[in-house]
Amino acid sequence: MPEHRTQIRQKRLLEQLEFHGLDALVLNPGPSLLYLTGLSFHLSERPVLAIFRLDGSPIIVLPELEAGKLLQASFEARSFTYGEDPASWVRAFQAAADEASLDYRRVGVEPTRLRVLELRFLEEAAPRAAYLNGEAVVSALRARKEAHELGQIRRAVGVAEAALQSTLPSVQPGLTEAELAQELSIQLIRAGSEPELPFLPIVAFGPNAANPHAVPTRQALREGDLILIDWGANVDGYFSDLTRVFSWGETDARLREIAQVVDEANAAARDRAAPGILASEVDGAARDVITSAGFGDLFTHRTGHGLGLEVHEAPYIRSDNDQELEPGMVFTIEPGIYMPGVGGVRIEDDVAITQGGIEVLSTAGRGLADISSETARSHVSDPVSRTASR
Amino acid sequence: MPEHRTQIRQKRLLEQLEFHGLDALVLNPGPSLLYLTGLSFHLSERPVLAIFRLDGSPIIVLPELEAGKLLQASFEARSFTYGEDPASWVRAFQAAADEASLDYRRVGVEPTRLRVLELRFLEEAAPRAAYLNGEAVVSALRARKEAHELGQIRRAVGVAEAALQSTLPSVQPGLTEAELAQELSIQLIRAGSEPELPFLPIVAFGPNAANPHAVPTRQALREGDLILIDWGANVDGYFSDLTRVFSWGETDARLREIAQVVDEANAAARDRAAPGILASEVDGAARDVITSAGFGDLFTHRTGHGLGLEVHEAPYIRSDNDQELEPGMVFTIEPGIYMPGVGGVRIEDDVAITQGGIEVLSTAGRGLADISSETARSHVSDPVSRTASR
Repeated sequence: MPEHRTQIRQKRLLEQLEFHGLDALVLNPGPSLLYLTGLSFHLSERPVLAIFRLDGSPIIVLPELEAGKLLQASFEARSFTYGEDPASWVRAFQAAADEASLDYRRVGVEPTRLRVLELRFLEEAAPRAAYLNGEAVVSALRARKEAHELGQIRRAVGVAEAALQSTLPSVQPGLTEAELAQELSIQLIRAGSEPELPFLPIVAFGPNAANPHAVPTRQALREGDLILIDWGANVDGYFSDLTRVFSWGETDARLREIAQVVDEANAAARDRAAPGILASEVDGAARDVITSAGFGDLFTHRTGHGLGLEVHEAPYIRSDNDQELEPGMVFTIEPGIYMPGVGGVRIEDDVAITQGGIEVLSTAGRGLADISSETARSHVSDPVSRTASR
Repeated sequence: MPEHRTQIRQKRLLEQLEFHGLDALVLNPGPSLLYLTGLSFHLSERPVLAIFRLDGSPIIVLPELEAGKLLQASFEARSFTYGEDPASWVRAFQAAADEASLDYRRVGVEPTRLRVLELRFLEEAAPRAAYLNGEAVVSALRARKEAHELGQIRRAVGVAEAALQSTLPSVQPGLTEAELAQELSIQLIRAGSEPELPFLPIVAFGPNAANPHAVPTRQALREGDLILIDWGANVDGYFSDLTRVFSWGETDARLREIAQVVDEANAAARDRAAPGILASEVDGAARDVITSAGFGDLFTHRTGHGLGLEVHEAPYIRSDNDQELEPGMVFTIEPGIYMPGVGGVRIEDDVAITQGGIEVLSTAGRGLADISSETARSHVSDPVSRTASR
């Protein structure tokens, strides 16, 4: 990562620490550490911890085995390494906590990332520090994407759409959900995704699509089935996350009806999203369409989530989130209706808030297309008209 | 998972809880939860927690969105679900903690898995419980593989070896480390690995191989380069983890020398491993060979780690681990020598302790083969003679 980028981000981090009344932030390996340092460490049974603090340069505790990575660091850091003997781990944490004078300080942690492993080492090394929820500190920075980051997410969307297009020709009755997910995974990597996919593609046929978090099974595709595909690519650590629905031949009339409603709900949320609008208002726009159509009880999840170095991050597009949308924020819009025993429809796009409106990053057609003909399978990635910025 | 399997495992868990003086064990999504329940949940910002306890059936806290998965459970469980509003999360945790009477109890946690997220919800719901390191409780069970599990790991080794064989024909000067890692990832999935690989393959050319945890770069293969490949497959959640070294043409004499030493160290550790032998003795067998050859300082890591539903798990083959090896234990043997600026060699096999000796699961040739000829590239997976059981 260019030197100036990590320095700017670390400087902004300190401003956020002050704003949130914290003296330090501790991070273990994961997207926030990568964002702030450009360094990627294994999350393993050997703890790695970085301490960012108001009153000095960053401090890193890590195994000797990984110390070579610090040579690539584009910023000054004090490191404390340990060997294979766990007794040396305690000493390294103690030295780092002493160097940072952590005791009696207000220390932020990321609750969804930091493990009891690292927390206990910290508590032993600095028992009188207060370990507080510091999630907002980094997420405030990460939620507003830089131009460079937006470019990577655009590429991740493009890779995902190209991979779907390369995969669909192999769809035919008898193919299982697991086989289709496997082929899509291969095509994602071929199209340029990192092999570490953001998540295993969800492929659900017929009634299996009624589960929003379905896991691909050995269920084979049959004539008349709905096909739900929820997939994404990883480009240089940045993720895309899309969902489209198809059918093989003519599917159940109820599924065709809810596909129409979900498509309208998706459009309503895209129309509503803009700088200054609240996340809850975008959720409301989708939810109102679905509720008015009588399916409110079957839309069982939030309308979307932020997207970037994580597949779920701020801002969450939820009825109780009164956060204002700001230029640079990237999130999914993914209303869904789930009919137990019948099936489900979710249509998911990735959008970025711009200065004047939104940019819809995903362009594949959103309707419930019948792909039982070869011609139909060849055109699913044809662009739909982009929502005009306002 | 068959009903009797989860029931037997949960019954053994309770015996382990008693043995370790714990009243309960709490698990978040991950391999131990999968092992004990057959249930696979997303690890996300929405906490999922299972409580196993001496005095009642398991209790699970989870989002409503995921409740459908419990229908597949082959055991009785009490569930507490919550909605999208985080206030409802606290209530679900409180109800679960009350049902389990967690307060004043000794509650085991897995420090490398449980996050501050789940810990804080637990501490709020049962502030007077003691949250203790319960890692040994499940790892004692998971370390001794059932015949069924051994079969999956054997398959994962077979898939990895087949994938390497399908990948090597595309190796040629100019190919980058990242491209080779990408192709190997694709071939792993084609050969039958789950798309969620145990880890991103490590591919390191020449001096890059001096870093044991190298990440593939845009470095292109050149005549005379050493090629280190560390890769594995995932078959139904069970992992393999292998490393082999090759050269393109004749490589540096120092690398050929250390390859010979590492090969001997690997053989010495395989010869030493047997039921009743200590993990530290297996480490010592490999380390002695390398130290005698004058490279002790350049063997910077442990000799191996257990392998199963995690790529690093018990037993750890480390100089300070005086744990006795038992039939059913599966682990890697992976001595290495790393010369900064020159390169490195690691040769890694997967072995299982049997009643009378060991079974070496990986059969690909271990020597530093020159694969610059097409014939050589076609035969790397030829079986080496298996170590006879004793």
